[in-house]
Order: sequence, then C-alpha cells, then structure tokens
Amino acid sequence: MTVSVPAAADALLKQRHIHPDRGNITRAMRNERTGHRSGVVWLTGLSGAGKSTLANAVEHELFNRGWQISVLDGDSVRAGLNSDLDFTPGAREENLRRAGQVAALFAEAGHLVLASFVSPHQRGREFVRKILHHDFHLVYVKADIEHCIERDPKGLYERAMQGGIEHFTGLGQSYEAPEDADLVIDTSRFDVTAGAQQLLEFVQTRFAL
Amino acid sequence: MTVSVPAAADALLKQRHIHPDRGNITRAMRNERTGHRSGVVWLTGLSGAGKSTLANAVEHELFNRGWQISVLDGDSVRAGLNSDLDFTPGAREENLRRAGQVAALFAEAGHLVLASFVSPHQRGREFVRKILHHDFHLVYVKADIEHCIERDPKGLYERAMQGGIEHFTGLGQSYEAPEDADLVIDTSRFDVTAGAQQLLEFVQTRFAL
Repeated sequence: MTVSVPAAADALLKQRHIHPDRGNITRAMRNERTGHRSGVVWLTGLSGAGKSTLANAVEHELFNRGWQISVLDGDSVRAGLNSDLDFTPGAREENLRRAGQVAALFAEAGHLVLASFVSPHQRGREFVRKILHHDFHLVYVKADIEHCIERDPKGLYERAMQGGIEHFTGLGQSYEAPEDADLVIDTSRFDVTAGAQQLLEFVQTRFAL
Repeated sequence: MTVSVPAAADALLKQRHIHPDRGNITRAMRNERTGHRSGVVWLTGLSGAGKSTLANAVEHELFNRGWQISVLDGDSVRAGLNSDLDFTPGAREENLRRAGQVAALFAEAGHLVLASFVSPHQRGREFVRKILHHDFHLVYVKADIEHCIERDPKGLYERAMQGGIEHFTGLGQSYEAPEDADLVIDTSRFDVTAGAQQLLEFVQTRFAL
C-alpha cells in the first residue's frame, strides 16, 4: 500500500493537468450540444400579470424542441433555499440576490432559465443584472393592477386586501415599471397565446445557435 | 382594449388549466429524455483527497455519453451564492444547507449532480441528507491526511500550516469519517483511473435508466 502511494499521487496530479478542477465540461461544450446559448430571461411584473403562465408555455414548447430549459420562480426558491428569509425589504433583496446567483449556476450548467419574479424595484433588478451581466435579459410582463386583482390566480390579492399580507406589491407596496426592459409583453392587451408567442420569438432570437 | 381584457383573462385562466404553474415540465419528463435519473452524489473527504478530480473525470465521461451532469463544489458556490458567508461553524453549516438546496433544484431540473464538499461533520452531512432525502447518495473519498498534505493541490495545507487559515479540516479541525457512505473510494490505495472507474460504475448502477 505504501508503495502505491506516490504513484497514485502522481497519477492524480497528471489527471489534474489533463482535466483541471474547474470547467472540465465548459458552458460552451454544453451549449454546443443543446444547440442554444444558456442564459437568463428575467420576467418582472405584478403578481397575476401572467409571468409564470408565459414562462411555462415557452418552457413546454422549447423543451419539446430539445432545449435544456427550466423555470425558476419565487415558489421554487422560497420553499427551500430561501426558506430562512421573510418579506422585509432586506430579505426580499437577499431573496433576489440568491435567485440571481442560482440562475447564474444554471446558466453555467447549460440551462436557459426563465426566472419569474415580481422584482418590483429597479434597484433589485439592477442588483440581479450586476450578478448576471450579459446573461441578464429583462422582460416586463405588463398588466393593469385591476386585471391582476381580477385574475388573482393564487388568491394573494384577496389575502392582502383582507390584511393577511403586508407590503403586497401593487397594494401596500409600489411596483416600479422598468424602463430598461428588452421586451414588454402587455397581457392586458394580448391573450396568453399571443404573449407566449412574443416570448418564444424573443428567446429563440437571442439564444438559438 | 377594455373589450379584450375579459377575453385575455379568460384565455389566461384556460391556459393555466392546461399548463399549471408548477411542474409543467416534470422531472420524470426530463429523466426520460436524458435516459438517466437525476439526483445528487455527495462526495465528502479531506481537501486534497481527490474529490474534484474524481468528479471531473466522471462528469467528462458521462457528459460524452449524453448525460446531463455537472459538478457543484465549494468554489462554485463560495464565489457567488455564498459569498456572504465566512468559515465560522454557523456559516459553514449554512454553506452546506444552501449547497444542498441548490443541488435539489438541479436534481429537479434533470441533472445528475456531483457535489464535492469537504463536509467534515456527520451533523452537516445529515442536514444535507434531510434536505435531499432519497436523492442523497454519499461517497466517501478517503485518503490519509499525510497524502493530502503531500498533494495539497490548492496550496491550502501550506497556507493553513503557516497560520493563514483557521480551523482547517485535518489540521485545526477534525474530519469525522462517515459510517453511512454508500461507497468508499480509497485514493491512498487506488490511482485516479481506478477511483474514477469505481465512481463511474456506482453512478451508472444507481442512475442509469
């Protein structure tokens, strides 16, 4: 056993030289295989504007065309990774920071990430843009607050109006519409099929190889 | 515009019925496409034992066979997601918790994750096992501390011995060898090719469909 040790160490070092510890399988290799660039399409907008609906429709369509694509949203991170965070301003910012960092890891692993987060403030979105740099593509899913309240898919507006949720965006807390969006989808004007088509074309134009 | 709103809302609701918000593209659909189950192989062991070397060798091999596989390690999370954490006991536990939660998100997205973390304490590994449940597969990359110090691929032992790193595992801090490992790879006894072959067979046996 003691005899084999230097040989083993030497083999380890040689192997390290051939396959260095980081970036053995590179992002470029992953993208070449899937046929699309990886990156993050960040969907911002009021709760009920249709972000997740649009994201899921496009995920479905592009997965079926062979893309490595997934949706990251508040529900998927709040339940696990960010279960230690509440909804105070500082915690909401940390929630966005971690979501941005997780999206960055997914982009490195070859995914096209559709990140669906209310992300109501310019400051928070800028923060995520700084994390993701050129991987950050901003889509504003625009809808009148009245229509969001009417849709209220998760019953959150009702709960908020009954006092069950403090600082709910659109009611107690303002939503700052982005002026730097790469695409605006107005779900008050277009039905979901037309909206999903707009998002699909945007994603294909920016990410297909 | 006001005329089209109820129709848009109605279409959104109908679409939601067809493609519900969560789990549109399921883990099962992803696994069926890649031909392998997703999950997490958690490599524990001293710094310099060969965890990353083995992980990278297997990542390379299985990626080339079409697997959706990636390595998650301390370097990839410490630089971004966990850049707010230091190396105190509480912060190291939070580092592991977040790594486990990120691995869980990757498993949901169809990845076979090779997670390479020293994770020196049974308590911390148990914590990650609780997060990942049956997705957690533990591999102990075993090596004598003397050989790790001799290899010292990142120069960390040298820095630690010169006083640059407090509580370094194997020196100031103990490493608790796991008794619940699904596989033990002894890199003091086997060279990297033999070790990588053991890990490769383990992963294929457990995850190939």
